[in-house]
Amino acid sequence: MAKAQRKKASKKELIVQKAAFMFREKGFPATSMRDLAESVGIEAASLYNHIQSKSEILQHIIFRMSDDCNKHLAELDNGRLNNLQKVESLIRFHIKMMLDRFEEYHVMINEWIHLEAHHLEEFILQRRNYVQRLESIIKEGIDAGEIKPILPYVAVLTILSAVRGLEFWHRSRKSYSPQELEENMVEYLICGLRC
Amino acid sequence: MAKAQRKKASKKELIVQKAAFMFREKGFPATSMRDLAESVGIEAASLYNHIQSKSEILQHIIFRMSDDCNKHLAELDNGRLNNLQKVESLIRFHIKMMLDRFEEYHVMINEWIHLEAHHLEEFILQRRNYVQRLESIIKEGIDAGEIKPILPYVAVLTILSAVRGLEFWHRSRKSYSPQELEENMVEYLICGLRC
Repeated sequence: MAKAQRKKASKKELIVQKAAFMFREKGFPATSMRDLAESVGIEAASLYNHIQSKSEILQHIIFRMSDDCNKHLAELDNGRLNNLQKVESLIRFHIKMMLDRFEEYHVMINEWIHLEAHHLEEFILQRRNYVQRLESIIKEGIDAGEIKPILPYVAVLTILSAVRGLEFWHRSRKSYSPQELEENMVEYLICGLRC
Repeated sequence: MAKAQRKKASKKELIVQKAAFMFREKGFPATSMRDLAESVGIEAASLYNHIQSKSEILQHIIFRMSDDCNKHLAELDNGRLNNLQKVESLIRFHIKMMLDRFEEYHVMINEWIHLEAHHLEEFILQRRNYVQRLESIIKEGIDAGEIKPILPYVAVLTILSAVRGLEFWHRSRKSYSPQELEENMVEYLICGLRC
């Protein structure tokens, strides 16, 4: 990439990061392009050199996260882990996303409803397929005797909801490290499937 | 209670239930007294025979739920369960609240931020004490060898977040019964503490 292109790409990424922060804090509808330009430190008109609309940014954030989830799942499918190990890898992956990419993760799970019509449909479809794939892994683990019998729907709901709850850690003044949170939550959620 | 008083009390309860539904669906700020009166089927002016303000209803919903949580905790403190059994009772209690009193539970956990200043402080204090008490039960369970070593903060966060996730079941078309959800989630969350 030429230097000018790299600079443009990094400016776009800065806009995306600032937007994720604002969408998370104020919600997508309440964030204006003017506020966003101000937080990036450029003129509102200049924003349009980088992005076409507020909706385009939302779409960019959400589908990049969703793509990363799907890529991780594809890696698991091509790997050699057993089903319980796959579940552990999934839990760690989601915890890391929630802790390291909090703003974007929060936008994906809370602001998707504001996607434009066909993107909304696409996201709902991707999410449904993803959750179904997670449920299948649990089911295959039960069939293989690696996971105790449990309704896969409840197991997946419990795991994803627990990770979602780490949002409260971001807001709290608790001094536990991300590693402590990850290890303790993985231990809890994996033991619960095994015993 | 005289018949007129009973009728008045049941009208007030109807107002509270309709309000909980609307606060959950539209959020507290977006719910108007006019909409509420319409959904109850009375004149807006007549609402004020039963309640003083929208804030009073919010406060009523939230502190009734919070009181019920605290009453349940006091019963546990006065009972003969061991710590792990107490945790199981707490999980079942929260699942039942989420499933049977969904609107009110949702309002308590999502709309508390709209309480008026001193009620807000009071609620935050009550919630902090409640969570600390739950963490203590986990800690006492670990010390007694009933619960495996785990950061009590993570255990309580995982439990309350998992229950919170049952909200998605309300919105989904899944045909699992409340009993199936409760048994599977309890099994998962209790096994995870024991193994």
